[in-house]
Amino acid sequence: MNDIKKLQTLINTHISENPYQQSPAELYEPINYLMSLGGKRMRPVLVLSGCDLFNGNIEASLDAAIAIETFHNFTLMHDDIMDKAPLRRGNSTVHEKWNESVAILSGDVMLVKAYQLLMNYKNDELRKILEIFNRTAVEVCEGQQIDMNFEQRRDVTIDQYLQMISLKTAVLLGASLQIGAVIAGAETSDHQRLYEFGRNMGIAFQLQDDLLDAFGDPEKFGKQVGGDIIANKKTYLLIKALELAQEDDKTTLDYWLQKHVFIAEEKVSEVKKIFESLHVKELIKEEIDRHAEKAFEFLSQVNASPGKKDALKNFALDLLQREH
Amino acid sequence: MNDIKKLQTLINTHISENPYQQSPAELYEPINYLMSLGGKRMRPVLVLSGCDLFNGNIEASLDAAIAIETFHNFTLMHDDIMDKAPLRRGNSTVHEKWNESVAILSGDVMLVKAYQLLMNYKNDELRKILEIFNRTAVEVCEGQQIDMNFEQRRDVTIDQYLQMISLKTAVLLGASLQIGAVIAGAETSDHQRLYEFGRNMGIAFQLQDDLLDAFGDPEKFGKQVGGDIIANKKTYLLIKALELAQEDDKTTLDYWLQKHVFIAEEKVSEVKKIFESLHVKELIKEEIDRHAEKAFEFLSQVNASPGKKDALKNFALDLLQREH
Repeated sequence: MNDIKKLQTLINTHISENPYQQSPAELYEPINYLMSLGGKRMRPVLVLSGCDLFNGNIEASLDAAIAIETFHNFTLMHDDIMDKAPLRRGNSTVHEKWNESVAILSGDVMLVKAYQLLMNYKNDELRKILEIFNRTAVEVCEGQQIDMNFEQRRDVTIDQYLQMISLKTAVLLGASLQIGAVIAGAETSDHQRLYEFGRNMGIAFQLQDDLLDAFGDPEKFGKQVGGDIIANKKTYLLIKALELAQEDDKTTLDYWLQKHVFIAEEKVSEVKKIFESLHVKELIKEEIDRHAEKAFEFLSQVNASPGKKDALKNFALDLLQREH
Repeated sequence: MNDIKKLQTLINTHISENPYQQSPAELYEPINYLMSLGGKRMRPVLVLSGCDLFNGNIEASLDAAIAIETFHNFTLMHDDIMDKAPLRRGNSTVHEKWNESVAILSGDVMLVKAYQLLMNYKNDELRKILEIFNRTAVEVCEGQQIDMNFEQRRDVTIDQYLQMISLKTAVLLGASLQIGAVIAGAETSDHQRLYEFGRNMGIAFQLQDDLLDAFGDPEKFGKQVGGDIIANKKTYLLIKALELAQEDDKTTLDYWLQKHVFIAEEKVSEVKKIFESLHVKELIKEEIDRHAEKAFEFLSQVNASPGKKDALKNFALDLLQREH
């Protein structure tokens, strides 16, 4: 396994050295802007890692890695419009910096550009990659719509929530690894196991995000702690609390969910008290562990060098232990 | 050449018999809704015609035809958001009937669904089709952005306008024919000539739309005559009039372009008087003829049965002589 930092650098260098320079500028500048805001580059790193795991040529998987990162940023550009988000990674979102029409259209062209990057693979590879990519792209859209539908519902179950985050977030991590493995020429059974490793880790990462949003260290978290609580977002914590709360806890929880005018710190503090009294913090940690263990079980069955598999496992564990 | 009506029926039957039935409904119902609103089905008919011209199996080109129609409807769904259009073919637009987030996301998934339909072609064909499709999809986005940019400009030239409508509208007609020809196994030189026939006809059709918007028979036109004039839309007519107008005509044109409060009928009637006095109606007709002749010249060079080429030419001539 190549050092993860080296893979991140490879991705960042490639993105900064290959900006879109076509016109009209309103279509291409937002792509360069959003792509250059950085982030952990988790998905493209997973493409390169999936390729390296089977001793593939990392350079050969770079176009697919950039395609996946382009696709991911397309979803961010459109999601930010839908969420009316003013900021992305501490900077103005595209619809704020330009306008909504630009964000819609520039996002559309990004999706096509992702497909164009995949055209650099030869026929048999291309078909396999496109089948994974298309299926995943549809699932990510479905996940986003289901997440929006949850805002209007109070009866979301934990199973439905896990299914939603699998679609919205986790399948793309699985697909990234799987596409890298396909490029390296891995056996179908192996790249499918690797996909399930990535998907289960993706669910664990999202649950970790839910946990950090409520219980993260404000100094390390980098954004407002309790944002999900303030917005009544149906996360694992809230869904579980609604499922378990009885009598006084239920009354207090209902009170805060229905209150339109409140002091943010007070709501966050009161709802967190209920989360603690119902032990949902412990329950989410168990859920995270279950998915991580399931992921590692799939990884252990992949036919690849134990050293490289350990490096991938350690990368995943590092991400799970992050505090922001 | 199969009778065009038969091809339209084939497309309409296929669309109505194969609705998307997946969930979430908010993602898939808008696709079925928009696709079922009908229209002339010009693009998918051109795919089937392009295939038939080279004696290909029409049924074999049906998936590509539906992919192109799905792509076209995706652009309509997103364009309607950008244009804040309340109606599409006399019915509520998707963002009006549902909401804007649904229209963004449902459009996104349509684009992926178009790619999924193309996966039904075998490897060599798939690559050729995707190369045409990707290039065209990027161009259509560029054309839409350039059109939006024109709203803020007064110095648009006729050449820039023709370039914009080529990208926004015409290349997709060329690509539809070309993809049909590729599926039939036509020679590269032939499917490129057919592309140029379609692209030049597309420019002629759009100019015809500009002409009808101002000078169409209100009873046959089906929508408000003069809509482009009311909105100061930079069409061929207005750009040419701005180029030619001197003294009194120039003053009157500027007056109406800058007036925010006006009686629509009066503005339309006064601006049309200037169009007539500057003979831009005759000039646009000459431009239409030039592009139609160029198109027919390309068609004449295509190696295919003269009977089938004549049928395609007559289909194009019928569309050019339409009054709505």
